Amino acid sequence: MKKSSSKNKKINIVEVGPRDGLQNEKKFLDVDTRVEFARRLTLTGIKTIEVGAFVSPQKVPQMADSKEVLERILKIFDPKKINFPVLVPNEHGMQDAIEAGAREVAIFTACSEKFNQANINCSIEESFERFKPVLNLAKKNKIRVRGYLSTAFYCPYEGKMSPKKAIELSKRLLKLGCYEVSIGDTLGAATPNEVSDVLKGLKKEIGAGKIAMHFHDTRGTALANILRSFELGVRTFDSSLGGLGGCPYAPGAQGNVSTEDVVYMFHGMGLQTGIDLQKLIEVSQWMTSKMDKVLATRVGKAGLPKS
Amino acid sequence: MKKSSSKNKKINIVEVGPRDGLQNEKKFLDVDTRVEFARRLTLTGIKTIEVGAFVSPQKVPQMADSKEVLERILKIFDPKKINFPVLVPNEHGMQDAIEAGAREVAIFTACSEKFNQANINCSIEESFERFKPVLNLAKKNKIRVRGYLSTAFYCPYEGKMSPKKAIELSKRLLKLGCYEVSIGDTLGAATPNEVSDVLKGLKKEIGAGKIAMHFHDTRGTALANILRSFELGVRTFDSSLGGLGGCPYAPGAQGNVSTEDVVYMFHGMGLQTGIDLQKLIEVSQWMTSKMDKVLATRVGKAGLPKS
Repeated sequence: MKKSSSKNKKINIVEVGPRDGLQNEKKFLDVDTRVEFARRLTLTGIKTIEVGAFVSPQKVPQMADSKEVLERILKIFDPKKINFPVLVPNEHGMQDAIEAGAREVAIFTACSEKFNQANINCSIEESFERFKPVLNLAKKNKIRVRGYLSTAFYCPYEGKMSPKKAIELSKRLLKLGCYEVSIGDTLGAATPNEVSDVLKGLKKEIGAGKIAMHFHDTRGTALANILRSFELGVRTFDSSLGGLGGCPYAPGAQGNVSTEDVVYMFHGMGLQTGIDLQKLIEVSQWMTSKMDKVLATRVGKAGLPKS
Repeated sequence: MKKSSSKNKKINIVEVGPRDGLQNEKKFLDVDTRVEFARRLTLTGIKTIEVGAFVSPQKVPQMADSKEVLERILKIFDPKKINFPVLVPNEHGMQDAIEAGAREVAIFTACSEKFNQANINCSIEESFERFKPVLNLAKKNKIRVRGYLSTAFYCPYEGKMSPKKAIELSKRLLKLGCYEVSIGDTLGAATPNEVSDVLKGLKKEIGAGKIAMHFHDTRGTALANILRSFELGVRTFDSSLGGLGGCPYAPGAQGNVSTEDVVYMFHGMGLQTGIDLQKLIEVSQWMTSKMDKVLATRVGKAGLPKS
């Protein structure tokens, strides 16, 4: 339902607010609110919503009870019509995800050794070892697996990354069985020509159809980077309602690019996302009341212009 | 000193914070602070700084005493080395600008009749009548004239504008004697393909070298629009330190795109602006203390990544 092609004019939005967004926010939302958040998002027409992470609640308290969140969502919605991926770090998380009824999971590693050590306490090589049993279980249970590749452009510890790393690791993730790789500008530091450097190599090796781009707007370049990625054939983009999710490496700065802003740009360009932007802005306003802060979305604040 | 060519890799930044920025801020800055703001901006390497508007202080109190601001700045700096344009609405303002020693002025009109009526209380045709004596005085005194064209994409009253209007009026402004036209997305509502629609026609008629783009970031698309403009050959961009300047049509939303964010993107793309970004961020921090608010700049908040 989410397959992309570099030729068509349809954009696939992967809403990561309830997972990547919330896990980087100070404010904790309970299970009820997170289920309601997902429910409201479905009303906008979004077809893929990442709803949780099956990780240690000691390490990521915001994602506690993700199993219950997913179970409750799957009681309401048909996962054949709307896709609710969850993040799994290892075999144990994968078993929980299967028990909860997950139809898609996401695994994650980084282009930077130092980042992986700091983030998941293992080397890149070890992270791939952890993936093997996850992929085996996925195959057995017919669960789709998406791969996240962090720090594809910049690392907070190693600085600017070589595009070769993202290309090499994307190929490995696909070979392992991922159907798509999401290339992350974790620091929100990339600029359009740097995006081209990574994407041109990636397209040659794996084609644009298996690539998603995951931009953070920490330095304001996310929409420009998305535009450049679009120009190079990418059609799948991760984004977070209200720009939920800060940047742990620049306190007070923005993290994920706002879904409202991404959808606004693409609609203005005559492209289709299948999303009702006005409804999305209403979810953004609802979420503002839940988060007790002004969300990092420009369109959410400014609304739509007179057409 | 600011001529652009679509072939070179040099970007011209026109800093409009002390004028277009401040005139849309609630907080009033006195003459001393505005002169100091311009002085600090010069230290970053910016070569064009719009420092005031010779308009009615009843209508635009933030720009009161612009004459004194310009006079004091011109006592410190050589206008042959750094360009300090001021806005003039009519012959009277032009006479004041000449007395103050201005070497460049800017005139302004809009693509939308309704906007012009609301903004400067005259029709587009009447605005051109007002320009004639200004241009005559400019010629006599060897003063460069820049033309601003507002609401080139969207108007708060008329909605989406036809690209034809921007093309027709740009040609008229150049014919009148302007050396450059700054095409404004006053509402911050344009998206990249809309930018292409205007720019492709403009390039054909007048060439990219006489076009500057003036984007507001109200809906987050400014950097994407700047990227698209750059791809189409434009090399001159207006921006405002710290994103100073709100949007009168969407209270609480952002106006001008932040200079720090524009410079960050271009530097990341391997282009030259002649601006020291770290020094610019320092001016941004100083300005934060003067404005008593968090400025609308992403790079100013996040700083530079490890390189």
